[in-house]
Amino acid sequence: MQKINIILVGFGRVGQAFYELLKEKYDYCRERYGLFLELKGIIRKSGAVLLSGTRKMVSEAGAAGEEKAELSSWVQTFSLVDLLDEFKSGVLVDCTPSDLVTGEPGYSLIKTALSRGWHAVTASKGALVVHPSELEAEARRNQVALKASGATAAALPTLDLGLHSLAGAEIMAIEGILNGTTNYILTRMADGLSFSRALMEASEKGIAEPNPVQDIEGWDTAAKMVIIANKVLGTAIKLSEARVHGINGLTEEIMTRAARIGKTIKLIGRCSRETPGEPWKVEVGLALLNPDHPLAAVDGSNKGIIFYTDCMGYIVLSGGKSDPRGAAAALIKDIISIYWRDF
Amino acid sequence: MQKINIILVGFGRVGQAFYELLKEKYDYCRERYGLFLELKGIIRKSGAVLLSGTRKMVSEAGAAGEEKAELSSWVQTFSLVDLLDEFKSGVLVDCTPSDLVTGEPGYSLIKTALSRGWHAVTASKGALVVHPSELEAEARRNQVALKASGATAAALPTLDLGLHSLAGAEIMAIEGILNGTTNYILTRMADGLSFSRALMEASEKGIAEPNPVQDIEGWDTAAKMVIIANKVLGTAIKLSEARVHGINGLTEEIMTRAARIGKTIKLIGRCSRETPGEPWKVEVGLALLNPDHPLAAVDGSNKGIIFYTDCMGYIVLSGGKSDPRGAAAALIKDIISIYWRDF
Repeated sequence: MQKINIILVGFGRVGQAFYELLKEKYDYCRERYGLFLELKGIIRKSGAVLLSGTRKMVSEAGAAGEEKAELSSWVQTFSLVDLLDEFKSGVLVDCTPSDLVTGEPGYSLIKTALSRGWHAVTASKGALVVHPSELEAEARRNQVALKASGATAAALPTLDLGLHSLAGAEIMAIEGILNGTTNYILTRMADGLSFSRALMEASEKGIAEPNPVQDIEGWDTAAKMVIIANKVLGTAIKLSEARVHGINGLTEEIMTRAARIGKTIKLIGRCSRETPGEPWKVEVGLALLNPDHPLAAVDGSNKGIIFYTDCMGYIVLSGGKSDPRGAAAALIKDIISIYWRDF
Repeated sequence: MQKINIILVGFGRVGQAFYELLKEKYDYCRERYGLFLELKGIIRKSGAVLLSGTRKMVSEAGAAGEEKAELSSWVQTFSLVDLLDEFKSGVLVDCTPSDLVTGEPGYSLIKTALSRGWHAVTASKGALVVHPSELEAEARRNQVALKASGATAAALPTLDLGLHSLAGAEIMAIEGILNGTTNYILTRMADGLSFSRALMEASEKGIAEPNPVQDIEGWDTAAKMVIIANKVLGTAIKLSEARVHGINGLTEEIMTRAARIGKTIKLIGRCSRETPGEPWKVEVGLALLNPDHPLAAVDGSNKGIIFYTDCMGYIVLSGGKSDPRGAAAALIKDIISIYWRDF
């Protein structure tokens, strides 16, 4: 049995989903993995709050009232460093918004945690695509984990597959449908809808974010593929080095023509290289897939990834909840994987 | 850098593929994972052989000749216990044939290794489906790993996904196409071939084993699903408790009728339970899948598995080499995962 201190930064949709799922999963994680996952504090832009730990929230009578009281007492007086030093060791859970240009605030927060010997798990992409090598180096220096399942297609375990399940195999190329919004739009356009109607539908259904420009332009796909490539292949590619085309400009006429020749149009993120030894490249763009391509059937807001290997053939992974609850589940999975072994 | 002693039992198709792949992957495993994977001995029915370790085989000039000499000097004088005691610690790699009735010789060999503090990785199904709890208990008692990726769909990482990538999520049900021979036959029957012609073609292509009765009757699928269920759900189901129907008796007429109503016929292994708290059940049988079922598109000798979860949605995995080289890659992956962490 092991007690794990958790500090959460960011309390938007994913942060709140993590907070709720942690309470829901507290007993299960204790029974199954011998881990007491104790949320000790939350930091958001407007302040911080100290918590008495998840056990108290889920088990004590009257805890709901207390929890509400705790959660309402945000103060400006705690900084991340205060909290890290107060609890000595544990995991920083980063749910701050992804800024793909500056990498902040995630970069500074994660770096601070790693440098103090804390593990970090993140659902945020910015830090890892702007400063790919700095954070990895900081984690190595302090011999702590830096995990990013929540930033690389949420509940779809793209990093686990590439890093652990394919261990020993050499990866020749990676291809993925990594953005639910654009895949939903393309699926509905294949059904005959115009781009703007399909986008509107995605917004109405809560699949598209209020400002989906990074999805539409391919940057969200590119950021995920960059993180996957860097983690799995050991590269240090920056998002600014990726060649990125989105789905903007796609017309009904192009969709119809693709259908006429029996092909499916998908927005594919790809990491490949010309020959072994050459540098790896990340590209995002529309691709015409044959119907028997393993990603051709990944429809709607679903995601999928395929790893081509030297001795394991190709392996395809698809599905996985991509809402805030799915991302929260990926964060909890990453925490468990830091502390739990199956023997 | 860590030196790992490996003892291989069984030197049939999978054992020999493991032997070859280990040499091929020796340098890569050293560079990438800091592991020297040293094969120290091989045991087969007709005798045993002591080896000087993989490093010597792959690096020294003239090693090919020496290796040939080493490999030709099988003797009766070494038992498994001799080898285990000689090298103190390491991994037993079990590539003995799967006997689904007695579980031998795998059971005795694995138990001996675990009880002496050796880890074990197996490509053989017998021991784990006949004595599901004894070996797990022995591994726990000695705090060593017992891994079975090679026995549960070879390079398709079914166990990694269920055990690690879904950690924290609760699994509601598991479904899989886990046998390449029967899936190939069903795919070709859907193309219009008769059962016997499809089987003949599978044999000619080397997909079907010389005696494919355990495949055809569903027992191979059932054995894999039993091992997956026991590992992932913590159950102790025996193969004899599974309800198993194969593809024998399937006629062209049934295939035609299924096609007429737009369905695909697949041999599905399933682990499910009526309600939470009830015992889990493993069943194998033909299923009529809708075309949008995630396993409907898993064709030919490919395999696939789907895990339904509470908070991660459903996750589908397909592909993965299922020949002896794929099984060998899964064994090496399991060895790496015992010793290597990504931080």
